[in-house]
Amino acid sequence: MTHPLDAHLDADVPTDSGLLSPVRAGTPVEAAVCDRAWLQAMLDAEAALARAQARLGTVPKPAADVITRTARADRFDLRALALASRETANPVVGLVQALTRAVADRDEGAAEYVHRGSTSQDVLDTGAMLVTARALRLLHTDLHRVGDALGALALEHRDTLMAGRTLALQAVPTTFGLKAAGWRELVLDAARRVERVLDGGLPVSLGGAAGTLAGYLEYAALDGEVGEAGDYLDRLVEAFAAETGLAPAVLPWHALRTPVADVAAVLAFTAGALGKIAVDVQSLTRTEVGEVTEPTAAGRGSSSAMPHKRNPVLATLLRAAALQVPVMAAGLTQCLLSEDERSAGAWHAEWQLLRECLRLVGGAAHTAVELAEGLEVSPRRMRENLAHSGAQLVSERIAAVLAPRLGKVRAKQLLSDAVTVARETGRPLPDVLGDEPAVTRLLGVGELAALCDPGGYTGGAGALVDRALGLPPAPTVERDAA
Amino acid sequence: MTHPLDAHLDADVPTDSGLLSPVRAGTPVEAAVCDRAWLQAMLDAEAALARAQARLGTVPKPAADVITRTARADRFDLRALALASRETANPVVGLVQALTRAVADRDEGAAEYVHRGSTSQDVLDTGAMLVTARALRLLHTDLHRVGDALGALALEHRDTLMAGRTLALQAVPTTFGLKAAGWRELVLDAARRVERVLDGGLPVSLGGAAGTLAGYLEYAALDGEVGEAGDYLDRLVEAFAAETGLAPAVLPWHALRTPVADVAAVLAFTAGALGKIAVDVQSLTRTEVGEVTEPTAAGRGSSSAMPHKRNPVLATLLRAAALQVPVMAAGLTQCLLSEDERSAGAWHAEWQLLRECLRLVGGAAHTAVELAEGLEVSPRRMRENLAHSGAQLVSERIAAVLAPRLGKVRAKQLLSDAVTVARETGRPLPDVLGDEPAVTRLLGVGELAALCDPGGYTGGAGALVDRALGLPPAPTVERDAA
Amino acid sequence: MTHPLDAHLDADVPTDSGLLSPVRAGTPVEAAVCDRAWLQAMLDAEAALARAQARLGTVPKPAADVITRTARADRFDLRALALASRETANPVVGLVQALTRAVADRDEGAAEYVHRGSTSQDVLDTGAMLVTARALRLLHTDLHRVGDALGALALEHRDTLMAGRTLALQAVPTTFGLKAAGWRELVLDAARRVERVLDGGLPVSLGGAAGTLAGYLEYAALDGEVGEAGDYLDRLVEAFAAETGLAPAVLPWHALRTPVADVAAVLAFTAGALGKIAVDVQSLTRTEVGEVTEPTAAGRGSSSAMPHKRNPVLATLLRAAALQVPVMAAGLTQCLLSEDERSAGAWHAEWQLLRECLRLVGGAAHTAVELAEGLEVSPRRMRENLAHSGAQLVSERIAAVLAPRLGKVRAKQLLSDAVTVARETGRPLPDVLGDEPAVTRLLGVGELAALCDPGGYTGGAGALVDRALGLPPAPTVERDAA
Amino acid sequence: MTHPLDAHLDADVPTDSGLLSPVRAGTPVEAAVCDRAWLQAMLDAEAALARAQARLGTVPKPAADVITRTARADRFDLRALALASRETANPVVGLVQALTRAVADRDEGAAEYVHRGSTSQDVLDTGAMLVTARALRLLHTDLHRVGDALGALALEHRDTLMAGRTLALQAVPTTFGLKAAGWRELVLDAARRVERVLDGGLPVSLGGAAGTLAGYLEYAALDGEVGEAGDYLDRLVEAFAAETGLAPAVLPWHALRTPVADVAAVLAFTAGALGKIAVDVQSLTRTEVGEVTEPTAAGRGSSSAMPHKRNPVLATLLRAAALQVPVMAAGLTQCLLSEDERSAGAWHAEWQLLRECLRLVGGAAHTAVELAEGLEVSPRRMRENLAHSGAQLVSERIAAVLAPRLGKVRAKQLLSDAVTVARETGRPLPDVLGDEPAVTRLLGVGELAALCDPGGYTGGAGALVDRALGLPPAPTVERDAA
Repeated sequence: MTHPLDAHLDADVPTDSGLLSPVRAGTPVEAAVCDRAWLQAMLDAEAALARAQARLGTVPKPAADVITRTARADRFDLRALALASRETANPVVGLVQALTRAVADRDEGAAEYVHRGSTSQDVLDTGAMLVTARALRLLHTDLHRVGDALGALALEHRDTLMAGRTLALQAVPTTFGLKAAGWRELVLDAARRVERVLDGGLPVSLGGAAGTLAGYLEYAALDGEVGEAGDYLDRLVEAFAAETGLAPAVLPWHALRTPVADVAAVLAFTAGALGKIAVDVQSLTRTEVGEVTEPTAAGRGSSSAMPHKRNPVLATLLRAAALQVPVMAAGLTQCLLSEDERSAGAWHAEWQLLRECLRLVGGAAHTAVELAEGLEVSPRRMRENLAHSGAQLVSERIAAVLAPRLGKVRAKQLLSDAVTVARETGRPLPDVLGDEPAVTRLLGVGELAALCDPGGYTGGAGALVDRALGLPPAPTVERDAA
Repeated sequence: MTHPLDAHLDADVPTDSGLLSPVRAGTPVEAAVCDRAWLQAMLDAEAALARAQARLGTVPKPAADVITRTARADRFDLRALALASRETANPVVGLVQALTRAVADRDEGAAEYVHRGSTSQDVLDTGAMLVTARALRLLHTDLHRVGDALGALALEHRDTLMAGRTLALQAVPTTFGLKAAGWRELVLDAARRVERVLDGGLPVSLGGAAGTLAGYLEYAALDGEVGEAGDYLDRLVEAFAAETGLAPAVLPWHALRTPVADVAAVLAFTAGALGKIAVDVQSLTRTEVGEVTEPTAAGRGSSSAMPHKRNPVLATLLRAAALQVPVMAAGLTQCLLSEDERSAGAWHAEWQLLRECLRLVGGAAHTAVELAEGLEVSPRRMRENLAHSGAQLVSERIAAVLAPRLGKVRAKQLLSDAVTVARETGRPLPDVLGDEPAVTRLLGVGELAALCDPGGYTGGAGALVDRALGLPPAPTVERDAA
Repeated sequence: MTHPLDAHLDADVPTDSGLLSPVRAGTPVEAAVCDRAWLQAMLDAEAALARAQARLGTVPKPAADVITRTARADRFDLRALALASRETANPVVGLVQALTRAVADRDEGAAEYVHRGSTSQDVLDTGAMLVTARALRLLHTDLHRVGDALGALALEHRDTLMAGRTLALQAVPTTFGLKAAGWRELVLDAARRVERVLDGGLPVSLGGAAGTLAGYLEYAALDGEVGEAGDYLDRLVEAFAAETGLAPAVLPWHALRTPVADVAAVLAFTAGALGKIAVDVQSLTRTEVGEVTEPTAAGRGSSSAMPHKRNPVLATLLRAAALQVPVMAAGLTQCLLSEDERSAGAWHAEWQLLRECLRLVGGAAHTAVELAEGLEVSPRRMRENLAHSGAQLVSERIAAVLAPRLGKVRAKQLLSDAVTVARETGRPLPDVLGDEPAVTRLLGVGELAALCDPGGYTGGAGALVDRALGLPPAPTVERDAA
Repeated sequence: MTHPLDAHLDADVPTDSGLLSPVRAGTPVEAAVCDRAWLQAMLDAEAALARAQARLGTVPKPAADVITRTARADRFDLRALALASRETANPVVGLVQALTRAVADRDEGAAEYVHRGSTSQDVLDTGAMLVTARALRLLHTDLHRVGDALGALALEHRDTLMAGRTLALQAVPTTFGLKAAGWRELVLDAARRVERVLDGGLPVSLGGAAGTLAGYLEYAALDGEVGEAGDYLDRLVEAFAAETGLAPAVLPWHALRTPVADVAAVLAFTAGALGKIAVDVQSLTRTEVGEVTEPTAAGRGSSSAMPHKRNPVLATLLRAAALQVPVMAAGLTQCLLSEDERSAGAWHAEWQLLRECLRLVGGAAHTAVELAEGLEVSPRRMRENLAHSGAQLVSERIAAVLAPRLGKVRAKQLLSDAVTVARETGRPLPDVLGDEPAVTRLLGVGELAALCDPGGYTGGAGALVDRALGLPPAPTVERDAA
């Protein structure tokens, strides 16, 4: 007879195949966090628990082996488990029943040791941490690939002149290398925060019914001498951590949600860091700017209507993720308000939010690799666009040069007036300034022309790139020549 | 030869079967908004567009028929479409290709009329509105079922005495009927807001490449006399609206996201309204309170560890949804900041958020039906719990009675002191007050006892229930007897 | 003797003068929602309550008069009230004490009638609705001024040709009039939503200690014959509504937060609507685009460093508001989860969020008036920028024209290839197409040139502007000439 | 002549005195982050910049001294600066003008060196970090005070028996010590995250107009030999960091907002950690539970209506903060999407959100000190409340004991049945079990009674407290006696 929880997946089951979330469709993180992966992780938790108890002698080793061999997601009916989860508000109760039956099919006695002394939250939370650790490792790798590609861009374009833009307007010159170095710094900030979470150790969850581990101790006592309670617990937590590859926790964290809040914060940050690159790429891709172009690929960026378009789809995907993750991460952070020993709702609200954040950020990072590795840069367009502002782009500099002679306020006013004249008449700023006795008294024609060259006013851009990339200082001569 | 977009769904495709979202697993909304439903809705939009153009004579009617017959989701490979969507940042480009091929297989000529003059966003947005309309109708029905059940509860318990609680403490008496009437009012507020969105008309999206409908006009002109542009557009929009069952829009809304923001607001409100019921049910369910119990069902609310527990799982599911939806809805509202004629990211961020909000709220409303229809109320426990506060619960009343004689300030102080004595000595408040000459001078023993009966101090609770339920005023006598 | 709550404001009191929120500094909404305005509104609620009770004969009219005359914010020490609010978690308890003392100073007897039968939440919530109503009326006026200015822009630029942009790239031609009409539509959507809230009626709050109005009834009974409870309550609520200018409420809403959630939704929407205009203005203001410029004013938009810059500061302020409001509005919506008859925290979390949202949106709307009324549009730059894409901007059109002859797929491919050649060689698209036999077979040189004119491909832009502005259809001839 | 920016504060200026935010009214953080503090911090940044340049010899030391002496907030008109900020979208432009004038009044020449080579964002961001550092140090101190108080509670109540509660219901026994130890762990998690931000070093902001520091270099070159650009920059950043007490930054972070995002994450976490304590305190304070009571103080917790209430106001304030901060922190995180070299809006959206988060969390931590240091615990009520569940609370244990003999499934079923009988008949669970041959065969009456004592089933609670507090393991005997 087929038990409901073992029934086969109906073809009509409503599924989510990634149709509405292109940023992650087909990227590795998708498989790492999908329902089946989550189910497997919960089964891994059950199996690791049995093995940990076997290490301590309170579960027979053969029973732990059978449980481990049986704990494979493809043996279970995902959809039936999902439906059953409505009865208990979580999928573990049904999973334990199904696993117990499946183990009993192989070894009636071993079934007694499934989920021994445990509670739903220990299994779900440990499973969640396993899934999270796997997803974060993928993310970390991709972030470093992005960082490497951006480092290469920064190096190549260390001295590529372009307009720095503030409040939507050209401000003063900068270099594309400095921009790329900034992106890289953000991405490495994200990678360091991911590392910190991974190194700090995503913890196993082991608390039993209400965080006292009483069930584990009770069963252990039945199965032999457990000795001092604290000592047994230490050994059990250590063994469980060792079997899962996760870290031990100081205290059961059923209602102390630091691990989830930490992951949420890191994911929101990473989404934002990648989103910053995206909005910059979009700003530079605009038709009228045209300073960068996304990597081309057959069919990439095509429009259903317009044959001429090559849309910046990778940046679009990154930005779409960055608009979704921080609000969801806030939802996760709010779940810190978990009342009592287990919340009636705040715990349950986490699961889908956590998975979605992992999936979006993991997909975004994978997408960013492609963007960073293939970004096409046009130094020519960058230089051409400087003509929009012309010498106005160095108005700050000329004001600075004149300030010691004219006073800061008068110098700035003089430049403001000259810029207005230049704008209204269409004459180049150097010409307008060349008519101004207060200027010509102080600067020769050649001096003025040199001051007005944007290429001479990139300040410390090159040196900042060197420092950000950890390069040795370039020889002064070469630097100045840039 | 199999084209990639026609390939069969691989068994290993990562899917989401609802394992992490019990609030909606198996509820009707799930099927209404799943990837396949969304795909069908986009196909419905393509077919409706062809039929609308056929109505206006710019597409041959037989071509529209073939397109309509071909536009069935089960003919297409969801996963392949999802994967292809990465190349263009949306799933429509690939879908149009696949649909064109499928139509061409039946009728080469008809394929020319697929997606004629159209753009991805017209199809995706129209599809999104179709999905939304279907989900909101389910939601509306469920909200009214919840409202009906709560109305019955309010009526039955119009005069069921219980403690009103503020800031976690018993405050003054109230009735369970008034509480249920309040829940109902909130749910009806939600239903009215859903109605307003449905009645106002979720609009078709019809703008063409950049909101001018130029493509539609161009093709129409090729196919015959279109007459005045505005007139043709009016007729096209009307026909498209008629074919889809959606409303016409004043202007193309590719970058004017009012419809999505409106839906987001309504869903956040509804989630919160149901969440309010949930937190109240949880408050009243607590072991020490025990005034309500969730409907029982076999296996419902059981724990993986504790045989004695009957967890309030329905309220837990509602609250879990209420913790997720408002932040996601904020994400949707933020997408109003859609730059230019189509945003590079803000549009794309909407899809998954919208679907998830629909799914969570639809699932929550369906769950709430069960909760409201089966909620068990214990008037006995309600009355027993009043003993915790005893006559202190009417301290406001006694202060009011004494105020005209003693002055408001002195009366309140006298009561505060008496309450402190009662609390510290464990004596009943009437006894303490009975020792107080300032009281006994004014009130006889019988009067004091009558004043101290919580059942006599429910104020307008009954009348408020009547008004909320639209009942005729009850005869005064009966009311006072309560 | 000076009572702490009457002490004068210390000069060292930490204050918020708007330094960090330029979007609202000095705008009318700021004064309408500041602490003093809020205090006055709560005093207005107290006074209106006394007058309402006097109307019903349960408070002496002279007492209500004294209370009304005393209830003036400048008599009270804001800071002392703020400090006192920590002891009770809300400012009303202290305010009632101070008001009672101040009334007693004038008329000992009248002091007995202050806050009679009432509760903190009735006063604070009614005050909040008064503040909200005043702020929303200011907002509504400003939104209509914005709408009027945008309508004028739309009319003036009905046929001003510009590039439509999607996913950051020029897509097909549009008109600035259509863009302005879209902005106007959004702003009117916002105004309609504000109206709906104002017309629906922001309600008074009148529930007494736990929503039964028992205290009001008890005092009324002491003061005379109240008759049937429900009847008295109806009359009291009506009188209170009449005295405040707010609407009556069906049920006390201490824990049914529909009014606040509705306001939050409207404010988030309005912030987003104005933010959409801002991101568009910024997009068009970019140095390389230069199609619009913010209104100039002395000192406006100047930079502390760069004399040449005229920053788009108004759009910047709008966008800054739009980035803050939706998340705060989500915070407000979440407060729907108010447990019991009054929440221990969810109520208290609303106040500052509500005020901040009102202030930001009100300031943004006021700022938007200036932006919309003074926006400078450059049809010349709009036309020049079309040269970036040249005839590629009408590639959709040419594909459409060729489709019936070549087939849709082949036509689109032919255009894609030609665009690639044009891009790589720098030759104009018409030239490239002119070399293509498949094209020249079908189109004469003149026909091709006419098709390639972006000005001929604005589709229904003009007609859409007419409809959005409610104009009669323009004569066909004139329309086509555009 | 009075310049507008020097005008005196008008008495009618709308101000925020904390009336709507009791959680922080009068707490130290309020003064640390108010407008005046922020103004002073920006002036501190200007002065530190001048001194840093003086260290490097590019500004005369006496000029730096005059600037430093003049840079005092009380010399400037806050409100005028706030109003002026609308013209430039930030308050620095006006501040630099006012500071320059004020310095010139003392020393005309020194005025030339105000804001030399700088930009608004350098000053505002450095000021923001100074304010943040000061607020975080206050927060850190308060968190440790909370932690100490909770540690004392945990120690005192290491073995105080109480019901563990999950999903709103009593689950299995635990101890209050374990609960307090958990709260302490969360608070220390928060303190560690605050430390990490402070130790990592909140950075100075030094980028000049667009992040190249070109202005600083230009002025330096005018004033003498600057040598290699990178070397000068390194020294300038170091000197600025030394003068402010902040950390140097690797790269200018005008558009790389890691520092703000990090602070936002820490504040959201801390708000949530304190909020968890609040919801637990509220859960335990409920009238029917009564296991803890907030510290009493004169007037504390009183109600405007009900003489008997002592509301848990401190927990209410904490929870109110916890409901506001995470959404605002999400707003801050989203500002990572800062386009170009300085965002037109994302930067400006940060200021008020950051200040509000600092203020709410700082106020909450200060409030939590009072709560934690004065919380009254009632071991008597804790024990009494266990009677609600009686032996059902150890049903997990009895099932465990029977499992090896009956099998896990049958044991759990037997207990479920017995619990149902006990519930329906009102008989104690041990009596019901005592009628069950399957039980009596295995357990004697005394054994059964011992198993049913909740005090014997606290599992590892005591040991976990020891570990969390870093205590040496207690002697086994004593432990078991608990």
